[in-house]
Amino acid sequence: MGKKGGKRPVGGLAKGRKTRETIVDRAMRIAAREGLGALSIGPLAKELKMSKSGLFVHFGSKEKLEAAVLERAADIFFGQVLDRAEVVEAGIERLWGLCDFWLEFVENRVLPGGYFFGGAFFLHAGQDGFISRQLREVVREWLKALRQAVDEARHRGEIRIAVNAKRTAFELNSLLIGAQWSRLLDRVDYSHARSAILTKLKSIATEKIPPNAFDSVMAWRHYLGTRD
Amino acid sequence: MGKKGGKRPVGGLAKGRKTRETIVDRAMRIAAREGLGALSIGPLAKELKMSKSGLFVHFGSKEKLEAAVLERAADIFFGQVLDRAEVVEAGIERLWGLCDFWLEFVENRVLPGGYFFGGAFFLHAGQDGFISRQLREVVREWLKALRQAVDEARHRGEIRIAVNAKRTAFELNSLLIGAQWSRLLDRVDYSHARSAILTKLKSIATEKIPPNAFDSVMAWRHYLGTRD
Repeated sequence: MGKKGGKRPVGGLAKGRKTRETIVDRAMRIAAREGLGALSIGPLAKELKMSKSGLFVHFGSKEKLEAAVLERAADIFFGQVLDRAEVVEAGIERLWGLCDFWLEFVENRVLPGGYFFGGAFFLHAGQDGFISRQLREVVREWLKALRQAVDEARHRGEIRIAVNAKRTAFELNSLLIGAQWSRLLDRVDYSHARSAILTKLKSIATEKIPPNAFDSVMAWRHYLGTRD
Repeated sequence: MGKKGGKRPVGGLAKGRKTRETIVDRAMRIAAREGLGALSIGPLAKELKMSKSGLFVHFGSKEKLEAAVLERAADIFFGQVLDRAEVVEAGIERLWGLCDFWLEFVENRVLPGGYFFGGAFFLHAGQDGFISRQLREVVREWLKALRQAVDEARHRGEIRIAVNAKRTAFELNSLLIGAQWSRLLDRVDYSHARSAILTKLKSIATEKIPPNAFDSVMAWRHYLGTRD
């Protein structure tokens, strides 16, 4: 969401923004590991070698800091998963891209810990308030991207017309969350998850795609690289 | 795990145990909604009309209270899901039972909120310490029950011999976690999840089971009620 490039702000304003970014970034890393509930103005200020009042100037309240942290995490997620998938060809390739980039994003520990890709949602989504609404919004946007990719793949004749986009999005999302779960349990990699996703895609694909393209991640990448 | 019946303790010991149970129960309900991190001795003592020191007599530390809460939650989970499934016939019926009871357990809000069936694990499982180890232990036992049910179903000729038990457990668990996720997002029921589970079971079943048995939850229950 945050646009890069363009005019370069100068002076106090730029410095203020830089400080604000540093605070949000630090807070986001704490929250990623321990949850938004673990954010505490005092220790955070101490860690950043600031006074509590100095930190308050930038946010005014813990709630506003939490909102800023969540917004930053969402921006990073959208940038690294949804925006990347936008560049990929629409249809089944983009559907795979969304899942693949999601897994890559977690693999690369862009946001460490299991909070933002699991914990936060389970903990807050059923509640009221700003944070919960924001979290639901991010997840809705993500599921919408999955559904749209399914619909496009259907229109392109890559996925059978009878396939339910909402249900497919639910099942793919479940495999991704389940993969996070397995990784936290056994510290395994995601090859398991990727092959489960390919099996799912195979079960809904049309004969337009050769069945052996779904046999392995390597076979799938080869297929994507060689198709018209 | 806690055995019922048998000798009935009397006097101070029984009273002490009763008080301890009341504290754990109250704390578990708070944690179920807001997480173990939200447990705080002071407010909890106030709510239970006890002194902080009176509460400390029973647990000694916040960590011990957290451990007791987690143990209680695990006991309830095992009692309502695993123990119930033990009574069901081994094989594909038990595999379905494990998933069905898991969903029922969450539907009935035996433990409210999204913490114990999602949040807690995502937040703590990747960390060190007693709580994290306990959580991983519970999840391991649950996945083991799923795997064993798959293995038994294979031995009984209900599931194809080539089916990988570990992967099937991963996929079924993913659908359950994903269903929790959807419910938190849209407050939907679990009919979606149950039919996705039946579709999964259909894809791994042998011809011993008539394919239309997997068409709907009603068809499946009818099949279970009428088979030898």
